[in-house]
Amino acid sequence: MPPARYRFLLINAFALPEEAGYGLRPSRGPKEARLMNHASLAPLLADVDWHLHDGALATHGNHPVETREEFAIVGVNRLKLVREACESGQYNAIVLLGGGDPGFEEAREIGRRHRIPVTSCAHAQMHLARLLGHRFTVMDISEAHNMHMAMLVRHYGFAPNCASIVNLNYPLPRPVLPNDRPLAAEKARHDRGERSEMVEAAVAAAEDAIENDGAEVFIIGCSAAYWLAPVLQARLAALGWEAPVLEGYRCAIEQAKTLVNLGLDVSGLAMPSDHPRRWRRKKYL
Amino acid sequence: MPPARYRFLLINAFALPEEAGYGLRPSRGPKEARLMNHASLAPLLADVDWHLHDGALATHGNHPVETREEFAIVGVNRLKLVREACESGQYNAIVLLGGGDPGFEEAREIGRRHRIPVTSCAHAQMHLARLLGHRFTVMDISEAHNMHMAMLVRHYGFAPNCASIVNLNYPLPRPVLPNDRPLAAEKARHDRGERSEMVEAAVAAAEDAIENDGAEVFIIGCSAAYWLAPVLQARLAALGWEAPVLEGYRCAIEQAKTLVNLGLDVSGLAMPSDHPRRWRRKKYL
Amino acid sequence: MPPARYRFLLINAFALPEEAGYGLRPSRGPKEARLMNHASLAPLLADVDWHLHDGALATHGNHPVETREEFAIVGVNRLKLVREACESGQYNAIVLLGGGDPGFEEAREIGRRHRIPVTSCAHAQMHLARLLGHRFTVMDISEAHNMHMAMLVRHYGFAPNCASIVNLNYPLPRPVLPNDRPLAAEKARHDRGERSEMVEAAVAAAEDAIENDGAEVFIIGCSAAYWLAPVLQARLAALGWEAPVLEGYRCAIEQAKTLVNLGLDVSGLAMPSDHPRRWRRKKYL
Amino acid sequence: MPPARYRFLLINAFALPEEAGYGLRPSRGPKEARLMNHASLAPLLADVDWHLHDGALATHGNHPVETREEFAIVGVNRLKLVREACESGQYNAIVLLGGGDPGFEEAREIGRRHRIPVTSCAHAQMHLARLLGHRFTVMDISEAHNMHMAMLVRHYGFAPNCASIVNLNYPLPRPVLPNDRPLAAEKARHDRGERSEMVEAAVAAAEDAIENDGAEVFIIGCSAAYWLAPVLQARLAALGWEAPVLEGYRCAIEQAKTLVNLGLDVSGLAMPSDHPRRWRRKKYL
Amino acid sequence: MPPARYRFLLINAFALPEEAGYGLRPSRGPKEARLMNHASLAPLLADVDWHLHDGALATHGNHPVETREEFAIVGVNRLKLVREACESGQYNAIVLLGGGDPGFEEAREIGRRHRIPVTSCAHAQMHLARLLGHRFTVMDISEAHNMHMAMLVRHYGFAPNCASIVNLNYPLPRPVLPNDRPLAAEKARHDRGERSEMVEAAVAAAEDAIENDGAEVFIIGCSAAYWLAPVLQARLAALGWEAPVLEGYRCAIEQAKTLVNLGLDVSGLAMPSDHPRRWRRKKYL
Amino acid sequence: MPPARYRFLLINAFALPEEAGYGLRPSRGPKEARLMNHASLAPLLADVDWHLHDGALATHGNHPVETREEFAIVGVNRLKLVREACESGQYNAIVLLGGGDPGFEEAREIGRRHRIPVTSCAHAQMHLARLLGHRFTVMDISEAHNMHMAMLVRHYGFAPNCASIVNLNYPLPRPVLPNDRPLAAEKARHDRGERSEMVEAAVAAAEDAIENDGAEVFIIGCSAAYWLAPVLQARLAALGWEAPVLEGYRCAIEQAKTLVNLGLDVSGLAMPSDHPRRWRRKKYL
Repeated sequence: MPPARYRFLLINAFALPEEAGYGLRPSRGPKEARLMNHASLAPLLADVDWHLHDGALATHGNHPVETREEFAIVGVNRLKLVREACESGQYNAIVLLGGGDPGFEEAREIGRRHRIPVTSCAHAQMHLARLLGHRFTVMDISEAHNMHMAMLVRHYGFAPNCASIVNLNYPLPRPVLPNDRPLAAEKARHDRGERSEMVEAAVAAAEDAIENDGAEVFIIGCSAAYWLAPVLQARLAALGWEAPVLEGYRCAIEQAKTLVNLGLDVSGLAMPSDHPRRWRRKKYL
Repeated sequence: MPPARYRFLLINAFALPEEAGYGLRPSRGPKEARLMNHASLAPLLADVDWHLHDGALATHGNHPVETREEFAIVGVNRLKLVREACESGQYNAIVLLGGGDPGFEEAREIGRRHRIPVTSCAHAQMHLARLLGHRFTVMDISEAHNMHMAMLVRHYGFAPNCASIVNLNYPLPRPVLPNDRPLAAEKARHDRGERSEMVEAAVAAAEDAIENDGAEVFIIGCSAAYWLAPVLQARLAALGWEAPVLEGYRCAIEQAKTLVNLGLDVSGLAMPSDHPRRWRRKKYL
Repeated sequence: MPPARYRFLLINAFALPEEAGYGLRPSRGPKEARLMNHASLAPLLADVDWHLHDGALATHGNHPVETREEFAIVGVNRLKLVREACESGQYNAIVLLGGGDPGFEEAREIGRRHRIPVTSCAHAQMHLARLLGHRFTVMDISEAHNMHMAMLVRHYGFAPNCASIVNLNYPLPRPVLPNDRPLAAEKARHDRGERSEMVEAAVAAAEDAIENDGAEVFIIGCSAAYWLAPVLQARLAALGWEAPVLEGYRCAIEQAKTLVNLGLDVSGLAMPSDHPRRWRRKKYL
Repeated sequence: MPPARYRFLLINAFALPEEAGYGLRPSRGPKEARLMNHASLAPLLADVDWHLHDGALATHGNHPVETREEFAIVGVNRLKLVREACESGQYNAIVLLGGGDPGFEEAREIGRRHRIPVTSCAHAQMHLARLLGHRFTVMDISEAHNMHMAMLVRHYGFAPNCASIVNLNYPLPRPVLPNDRPLAAEKARHDRGERSEMVEAAVAAAEDAIENDGAEVFIIGCSAAYWLAPVLQARLAALGWEAPVLEGYRCAIEQAKTLVNLGLDVSGLAMPSDHPRRWRRKKYL
Repeated sequence: MPPARYRFLLINAFALPEEAGYGLRPSRGPKEARLMNHASLAPLLADVDWHLHDGALATHGNHPVETREEFAIVGVNRLKLVREACESGQYNAIVLLGGGDPGFEEAREIGRRHRIPVTSCAHAQMHLARLLGHRFTVMDISEAHNMHMAMLVRHYGFAPNCASIVNLNYPLPRPVLPNDRPLAAEKARHDRGERSEMVEAAVAAAEDAIENDGAEVFIIGCSAAYWLAPVLQARLAALGWEAPVLEGYRCAIEQAKTLVNLGLDVSGLAMPSDHPRRWRRKKYL
Repeated sequence: MPPARYRFLLINAFALPEEAGYGLRPSRGPKEARLMNHASLAPLLADVDWHLHDGALATHGNHPVETREEFAIVGVNRLKLVREACESGQYNAIVLLGGGDPGFEEAREIGRRHRIPVTSCAHAQMHLARLLGHRFTVMDISEAHNMHMAMLVRHYGFAPNCASIVNLNYPLPRPVLPNDRPLAAEKARHDRGERSEMVEAAVAAAEDAIENDGAEVFIIGCSAAYWLAPVLQARLAALGWEAPVLEGYRCAIEQAKTLVNLGLDVSGLAMPSDHPRRWRRKKYL
């Protein structure tokens, strides 16, 4: 049997101390158990020789991230893992997991030094959404996370393509917030075949975005809500709306494959080295 | 041995009558011989069960296309082939060959009815270029073809990302034009290891685009010049410029794989059926 | 009496076989009877020596067009008529009838070779609407036609000026659609002085666009709904809204006059010949 | 003989005291003598019953206008003439002469109250230029006038269509400036069949704009340079460049005809009355 | 005690004849009494040696301004005051009062000649609002004033940042309008601690803009409504919305201080003199 | 003597270990000695009670930062200082020093929790530049730093206002780069009254940007080059160009004063808390 064409490291955004109880993902067991929504990813990973890193241990606190500061801290923490992975020679692409892309631009720069592509979930979703239609709506989960996504949309240059950013208002658990709307409980309810208010809210918000914002495609903000993607797409289809709903893991994995196949990572002119062979007198935007 | 995951039909933009002598591609022999630049595509096609259609016989004239009218005519001619391919059940994606994307939007709409993705060369290149950097320059070959590319850049919404569109001025042969700058002869010269003025012009123009237009990535307009991509990228690298140079076949093939893997074609809200189940009271741009 | 200054050929988008029964326009009788809404156009045509061509016989099917594919097919079919008209020496302008501008860009290119201006309905309406206010709303009739108009708005560069695109949902008749909302019946009702639900829906949607989308001007998408223009404008005026409502025939005819008077057609640099005297090293968007 | 369909008042931007010697136009004689470049306008005015007003006597000084302040002052001075013309019932359109559109927006608002269209030279040129191609270059005459034109381009929303604004640097005469580059002398030279450096500079700058800025159409800034339009277009054509060159009088006259024919002036929602019948809760840009 | 660092002249937009009874501001008494909302400005003026000019006597009529024409007339009237103030040598900055910025661009040009910064209320508010968030909503008072503000938003280049422009519909008094919704009465009511319907409408409209338009910051259009700023901000805060509400006087005063401190007024390249030392061959937008 | 109105903490971007020898700033002595270009800042700080923090000790290496990764690391390191300063109650504003704004958005978010404004150098310069003219050019020092500035321009939404980004190519010292173009040596040369090639290059590049890119204002990228601002402005003035040249410290200090005076920091809707009192169903860009 030939070696896999793809050798990927998937890196979670951060690892939380288990005892705090705010974890969103299992931190033990085989990689398949620790990778959220593994079942739906398995076909895409069938020809990939992949490892999963649980992420750098959080230094911002003991809870998931939503604020700018938290995203910045976990982003920087992840860079060390990216560099080690690049230097290990083991991988031909790195897939950054997590909805808010912490550390993505910097990781891409590191990858460039090694000619190894790095992909990330929000970025990959937006690029793919733009390919499927002119306007996408982001389904997201809290005020702070929504505004982080708004920043990413602008930062990546997709503002003209963003129909709206929905807040379903199921914020991630954190000490300061009474955990009375646990997103994980909604997923569990849905998985048991019970009615989830979060799913219902997402369907209603998506219909509203289709009818009132011009949404043609949906992407999802926080990775803790990625499980919604197939559910929402099926519900919309049942209502007669032919709207693709993306999530980040699948998009980031596929984008990594494309870059590996084409021998690309990022333009060295967009992310120059600190000792470039050539320099440009001027740059235009 | 398992069946190939990918079953693609590659369709050329048009077929010219052999006797006119304006053909750009061999029209006989095995598919590998008839597919331009097959050698560089072979690795990407290794896991694809692919067929090649030489394109509908040209009705606009006996020469390659460059004007709007010619693109429109060959575009419509190709739609019949797309529909037949969709209806045949043989393919899970269709890749439209040719630099100016004739018939692409309409073919995508047809594909949507069958849930079969259709990809095309300019469109795929622009999406990928945008992923690698903020600004790309199109390298192209003639006044009319250049303005066709300019129209596509705007039509697909990439104007803010287009640094410039270079005209190397090696127009395709046609009765009205003395064929004194044959592009094919340049390729032959280059393939023989001789100096090609077209290659030199491309290198000079690309350096100019990097230094004066803010180009970070290059794409190529006319498919008859796709052979330039690896040549130009290597020459730029030798000069110290780390600039990816894309061409359309590879990009369109890879985009097709991504869409197949993710079960996507195009948003049904962006390209509605003529008898949609639901309708929207308003649409926003 | 001096010869008329204007010698125009008006060309319908397509001609349907009479027996299918899907025709929107009379296909027999004098030109005045065959030109939709002739009464309101008569004053504009008083100083024009005009002919009417019923359009090329449809090859896409036996029903009006709404999809991308159908627009592309009838567009290409029309080009032959445009070329013949240009070559005939009989006309100093060509006016393309029909709401979705099939074949317009290509026809303009053909006209350029003969220095004969070609105008078209959506294009002419958008340019005029932009002159009267900053934002216009398109009133249109079906999901597919709406999205075609959305494409045209973007293609012509008017996205920043488009407040919204309304779908009144009176799709054109076609085999696949039960013809239970015939637009022609609405016009007949209105002409008889009876209440038309389509008119009422248009008034309500226009008020909504004024109050909620920032619409300052209205244009109409499908030419089968052009009769709405004066009706809607009068109804809005009666409600206190001073909003111009345009339709395409009048705008395209007047634009043609302007171009004839000024000796213009289209920039030869925007639509270069296939054997231009000069070429540009680069083009910027 | 029937009454003329068009009854236009053409109003100059301002009248200068004759004794100062800074006048650009004859202030005596029949209207034909006082209308700059009348010969080229005569065919367009053949079916127009027109009057010419020399403009309000200047209050900003005794010289032509170039600065923002000067444009504002003569703009306000002209409004009284516009109102009187509207109230006289004599005209069905008002054409504001002058390159920098002083008082245009306000005059349009006054016209709206009387349902009389008002057109102006820069505005009309830009709208027509946009119709002929995607990018236009403005040929203009001085630093201050250039920046006034830049402001108008942005104000009217044409910034994405403006390739560049050329300064030929033949500023209008004024006390503070030694009149050593008199524009009028250049015109005289050209009219006598002699070489004009201004014409040569315009040709060179236009070629540069075509080759380096992506210009597809040209318009002219200051009305004192409108005589350049046919000269420049012919020279470019002789060089092989098929570029339309517009000037303001012809464009503004033709735009007025279009508006008269279509019964339009400006959207009442864009320029509401001070006691509108209806009001909108919100407005979007 | 050292001389004040700041020597400002504040100039009202216009002065109305007292007898007409349409005045919005006291025209007698000490400057503190004549400056609207002085109490809230006092801390900002503590280190300013300031004078107040009541504005040039109105020539457009005897009532406050709302239409384009009225703004243009009072704008030009104010320029004389600006020039005199600049020439007096008494001031190091000029603050133009009034919501619609009449005469601002021209006054800035005059100031440039003397290297004296001129600031104005709408302009200063928009710049500051943009600093605090990405999208602001303008709270304004009438159809005509709203559209004037819309023009300013576009003119200053802030259209992408403008979430919406609210019309509270409390138009300023004028002969043609029955004064049945006097804005001043609303302020009086609020000042007496009574319920003001205008305040209630503003709170409701602001909440709507936050929830439905993406507003992050508020600015106020007409200066007669500037008293609303602290009231609205407090009410929103009480509702849980952390939204800054700006008004123009404070912003224009602070902007003037910044410019004085940094020794800046406006770029001489953006507002060139009528006899500049250098000239540019071309200008890009 | 009354307490100073302003109590600012100025925080450097990072502190380097002295022994490495790559430091750009003195790390010992009184605050005035440690603040770069203090002499030109002294007047602005005269009414400020200010402290200077040398920055968090670098963890990215022993040299100044230029790459994305380095900016991210020092940005996160600085956040702890910002939080401590906010919690100390000692300051009413925090001014982040350094050209590339490391940690700015996150610091602003922290400041918001304490209602303390945080300003930063690139951000403050761009806002002020936009106020002085429509287009600014950034003068910067190396490939990597230039692209970081390009990212900031886009991130802050100023792309339409950025004429160009100049690379003078005096990269900051780092182990991987032979320090043969030391920027500090250029400053020293200039300070001694000798000719600095860097100054000459800046003047030439600025003239080029004025004449060819439409630059109206200049800002400076890397804070190590801020000393250029007055030098460049004076040289341009001597050449006849009236172009303001900004630098970051002065702009950030003045912006902080404005925010303190107006009681503002950032919109709480743009940077929501992690436990906001209210939430929005949707957000628009």
